Amino acid sequence: MRGGAWPDLGGRMDGCTHVLPVRIYYEDTDFSGRVYHASYLRLCERGRSELLRWAGLSHSGLLDEADGVGTVFFAVCRMEIDFLGAATIDDLLEVRTTFAGCTGARLAIEQQVRCGESEIMRARITVAALGRDGRPRRIPSRLVNMLAAVTSADGEMTGNGTAS
Amino acid sequence: MRGGAWPDLGGRMDGCTHVLPVRIYYEDTDFSGRVYHASYLRLCERGRSELLRWAGLSHSGLLDEADGVGTVFFAVCRMEIDFLGAATIDDLLEVRTTFAGCTGARLAIEQQVRCGESEIMRARITVAALGRDGRPRRIPSRLVNMLAAVTSADGEMTGNGTAS
Amino acid sequence: MRGGAWPDLGGRMDGCTHVLPVRIYYEDTDFSGRVYHASYLRLCERGRSELLRWAGLSHSGLLDEADGVGTVFFAVCRMEIDFLGAATIDDLLEVRTTFAGCTGARLAIEQQVRCGESEIMRARITVAALGRDGRPRRIPSRLVNMLAAVTSADGEMTGNGTAS
Amino acid sequence: MRGGAWPDLGGRMDGCTHVLPVRIYYEDTDFSGRVYHASYLRLCERGRSELLRWAGLSHSGLLDEADGVGTVFFAVCRMEIDFLGAATIDDLLEVRTTFAGCTGARLAIEQQVRCGESEIMRARITVAALGRDGRPRRIPSRLVNMLAAVTSADGEMTGNGTAS
Repeated sequence: MRGGAWPDLGGRMDGCTHVLPVRIYYEDTDFSGRVYHASYLRLCERGRSELLRWAGLSHSGLLDEADGVGTVFFAVCRMEIDFLGAATIDDLLEVRTTFAGCTGARLAIEQQVRCGESEIMRARITVAALGRDGRPRRIPSRLVNMLAAVTSADGEMTGNGTAS
Repeated sequence: MRGGAWPDLGGRMDGCTHVLPVRIYYEDTDFSGRVYHASYLRLCERGRSELLRWAGLSHSGLLDEADGVGTVFFAVCRMEIDFLGAATIDDLLEVRTTFAGCTGARLAIEQQVRCGESEIMRARITVAALGRDGRPRRIPSRLVNMLAAVTSADGEMTGNGTAS
Repeated sequence: MRGGAWPDLGGRMDGCTHVLPVRIYYEDTDFSGRVYHASYLRLCERGRSELLRWAGLSHSGLLDEADGVGTVFFAVCRMEIDFLGAATIDDLLEVRTTFAGCTGARLAIEQQVRCGESEIMRARITVAALGRDGRPRRIPSRLVNMLAAVTSADGEMTGNGTAS
Repeated sequence: MRGGAWPDLGGRMDGCTHVLPVRIYYEDTDFSGRVYHASYLRLCERGRSELLRWAGLSHSGLLDEADGVGTVFFAVCRMEIDFLGAATIDDLLEVRTTFAGCTGARLAIEQQVRCGESEIMRARITVAALGRDGRPRRIPSRLVNMLAAVTSADGEMTGNGTAS
């Protein structure tokens, strides 16, 4: 589930924060020689997806009623992003994702992209749960509990213990 | 349909060939200072979509049974691409798309990307029609006729005449 | 310069606001059936680039000392984005870009993406001028004047009048 | 170099073939629900970059004369691609990259994208070495030797043994 023969692929928990390593390739750069600003949003979305997976959730699962969570998908509804530095080809970045709370149909998430000790980007992101009809949907409590379980200090220990 | 207040947006026919103008932005380039090779595939897909639209077809319409063409979408199944030159930021390119025939479930398309008189890329592309179930589907003859109508010499005149 | 045989390609001024039409293609969507959230940043960057071009500036020109503006390129340093609606394949959007002021090394820009009368996205963006060395650089007053000339009510009339 | 604390990040050698695991995210899909065709080219480019890195080469290093290989970068000049299947969100793919020979200024590379036992895509790719001036350049023999060392049966053993 989390990568099988490739255990690193989905990153890992560092306390309450999920850490995803990301290599910078041609596709992420632009003619300025640096990473294209919108590429960081792709990297952050990978981090959020891997945090969900770490919590036992997948996008395909969320869309599959059979999993008991119900038919739902996530859509970003607000982002505040500060671009603080620059990364370039071949850099090894870390996307750090923290679950910062849930209210009704919305999740708050904080993300940071680092290159070594240097902070490249910081974002505060609000994500809404939508049904297949595109309308907001209350986030199922089971889903919030699964997220909280891996992103709280206690949960992290449990989460690591039950990782498959 | 083809751009409303923006008549140029979908390009135009040049004899049997559809021509779509495309401006190069940051997003299309990479750290080498040139257009990223996979970006040309995005540009070519725009050209194919605009040729379909010129013929009176849209992706959303193809997925909508009510239009009489039937539920279908297109998937690229083969590409042969020669990268012959380089384009860079701010360049104004032309994507030239020619319908090169239809056999059963497949369309053959030839595309060329030019920058002024210079040929940047040339591609031979085979596209398959699939149903919602992902299985190959015979391309509806009405659809082939609509494509042929705008890409034949006679059809081009008719096509222009009925453009909305 | 602004599209030559394709006068619409770079959009146009609507009072103080630059308007760029953008068609949604496969590349802009994701498996949810809607436009991928990071795609809107690509569309907005096209709008900013076309506003610069409308003002007589190009990215390649900015990097070319011979134009008298000096060697400089722009990097986004902050974005606040509200995603208010959804667009999908074949939609015709308008990216509306307003120059909202300049302080030292930074430009403030407001952008909106609309689909017909519906507002899809709204963004407040801060852009910094950097030298080739990656360090912030005061934005040349000539450049600010050129931007102001096309985005002020008076300037807009002049701007349209001198468009080539 | 190859990922440091993340040893899996750059994939590994399987005999003469480099294998890179890739997770499918929102960014890779389109409204058809499947992976966008041009996304596979991005995935393949990651595979080629990691094969280079495995051989001790990096894009930044290739551009840095101090490494003794000389100033050079690679550009794709021809691709033949067969799209044989479909992948979708959350899928774990493997990009398999084989070095298929070198003639003067060109490298031949064969790539395959697999999802479990299923072959999704197959590509034959020709890559040219260019100097900073954009002109073809003979590929330095030291570079070819480094590639051959990790992609030959003997070299693979050595390559693994000296991996850092």
